[in-house]
Amino acid sequence: MGINIGIDLGGTNIRVAIINKNGMVEELLQEPTEVEKGHLHTIKKMVNMIHTISEGKKRIDGIGIGAPGPLDPKRGVILGPPNLPGWDEVYLVDEVSQHFSASVYLTNDANAAALAEATYGSGKGYESVYYVTVSTGVGGGLVVNGQVFQGAQGFAGEIGNMIVQRGGSQYSNLNKGALEGYASGTAIGKQAKELHDIEGGAEAVFDLVREGNEEAWQIVNDAVDYLAVGIANVTHVVNPDVFVIGGGVMNAGDLVWTPLREKVKGYVYEELVPYINLQPSSLSGDAGVIGASLLTR
Amino acid sequence: MGINIGIDLGGTNIRVAIINKNGMVEELLQEPTEVEKGHLHTIKKMVNMIHTISEGKKRIDGIGIGAPGPLDPKRGVILGPPNLPGWDEVYLVDEVSQHFSASVYLTNDANAAALAEATYGSGKGYESVYYVTVSTGVGGGLVVNGQVFQGAQGFAGEIGNMIVQRGGSQYSNLNKGALEGYASGTAIGKQAKELHDIEGGAEAVFDLVREGNEEAWQIVNDAVDYLAVGIANVTHVVNPDVFVIGGGVMNAGDLVWTPLREKVKGYVYEELVPYINLQPSSLSGDAGVIGASLLTR
Repeated sequence: MGINIGIDLGGTNIRVAIINKNGMVEELLQEPTEVEKGHLHTIKKMVNMIHTISEGKKRIDGIGIGAPGPLDPKRGVILGPPNLPGWDEVYLVDEVSQHFSASVYLTNDANAAALAEATYGSGKGYESVYYVTVSTGVGGGLVVNGQVFQGAQGFAGEIGNMIVQRGGSQYSNLNKGALEGYASGTAIGKQAKELHDIEGGAEAVFDLVREGNEEAWQIVNDAVDYLAVGIANVTHVVNPDVFVIGGGVMNAGDLVWTPLREKVKGYVYEELVPYINLQPSSLSGDAGVIGASLLTR
Repeated sequence: MGINIGIDLGGTNIRVAIINKNGMVEELLQEPTEVEKGHLHTIKKMVNMIHTISEGKKRIDGIGIGAPGPLDPKRGVILGPPNLPGWDEVYLVDEVSQHFSASVYLTNDANAAALAEATYGSGKGYESVYYVTVSTGVGGGLVVNGQVFQGAQGFAGEIGNMIVQRGGSQYSNLNKGALEGYASGTAIGKQAKELHDIEGGAEAVFDLVREGNEEAWQIVNDAVDYLAVGIANVTHVVNPDVFVIGGGVMNAGDLVWTPLREKVKGYVYEELVPYINLQPSSLSGDAGVIGASLLTR
């Protein structure tokens, strides 16, 4: 029996881990992505990290990589994600494969986290799990019967680009009125800066809310309301058994969770209200590497 | 070998059909629902129609019913749909089952049509099909690998209630800013009446567009734009291989299809543009009974 390797390739850090059969992290290496040095530099670093972590092990059974979208999981190609500037049409699976005899798989980071949460985390035991991450951006992933539903071109779960306010404001390369432009941590920080000159991003806004600042509360409440719309919309498209929600913004606790649970109920059919099931993610930072390793099973 | 019966229970008509192994309608009965006479009257009529159509046949292998949502397919209960007034918590499957030895199944009408289109119609051969119907209301259904994905409570595909304009206008018992309030045939007729005093509903609006009426064109163009937002949103949630789109509004032809195809492309990631695949439904009026019969397989 060899080892299963899960990799979380982020805009800031690369994390390479050995994951055991029970979905636990056995060993973990982390290094900065150094995206400014170009994709070849990062890939070389990733390959070295795999060599290091697998040294002395019998063999590598499989390597799974979770990376920011858009990407093409079928061809194993990164397609120019905002969080990996310069990675346009990068054949990541091919690049990594030539250094190892193991099979290499690629999926987007939200799908990897979704798979981990559905298999070992808060979504365990449910038939259908929609994972949502609310941090710098807003992303998601659908898992049905233990399998990621990637969609025809691998874009299932790209809910940050879902339009919740037709004709609304533009944010990064997304649609006008897209969810991410209203509900992400970035959006909260941006609103606070523009409306009330509050510096320090979403964290600072949450601190102010805890101090009783009404303006900060209004900004958070608005963002949560948009998030509730997004979750209700996903409900109307696929009606999953459970939503597992993670990401930095959700770490703000009751401040976000209490209004969110209430607001989602206001945006679904009355008959669905008793069944709305929103759970905090439970694997946090490890979901990415655990989920990526599951691609290899 | 017995027969498979498919039933389409609508607000206006009940259609009961024998469907053969190839998904063809062999015999069909249609009678008015007479919803004003109460659900017991309608159910009695449906039972009689099943007796009539199966007379002289060896046996009934299964009965599938498609009905307007909301409903609970697992319990076989109709939950008070706007198109069947007075049908609140009606145990339809139990009511029909006591008259026949065959198994009885229930799903919503859009799911039934989705299953038919995915199996025998425009969605044939695709792994994932999202069916959308645009007529009095807007509904849908997801079929993956030949199976309807009903969702945890059977509400998958209820995209008429998807919010595309947060804080927008209210329409029937749906969410404020819900898709159905902007993109349905009813919405087109209502806009035309309110804005320009055009009588005659969506049909009249389409006629005016064909005569070159600019105001009528603007109304249609707006509705199509909202529909495009809805389809793009579904793409970002599940990224299906194909959308099969039916319903009265889509019968308006190029007038609706040409701008729709263009607009959807404007609301998805650039990488997805070449793959956007919108097909007209091909089974039209028979999709309901054919799809319902497939529940029994």
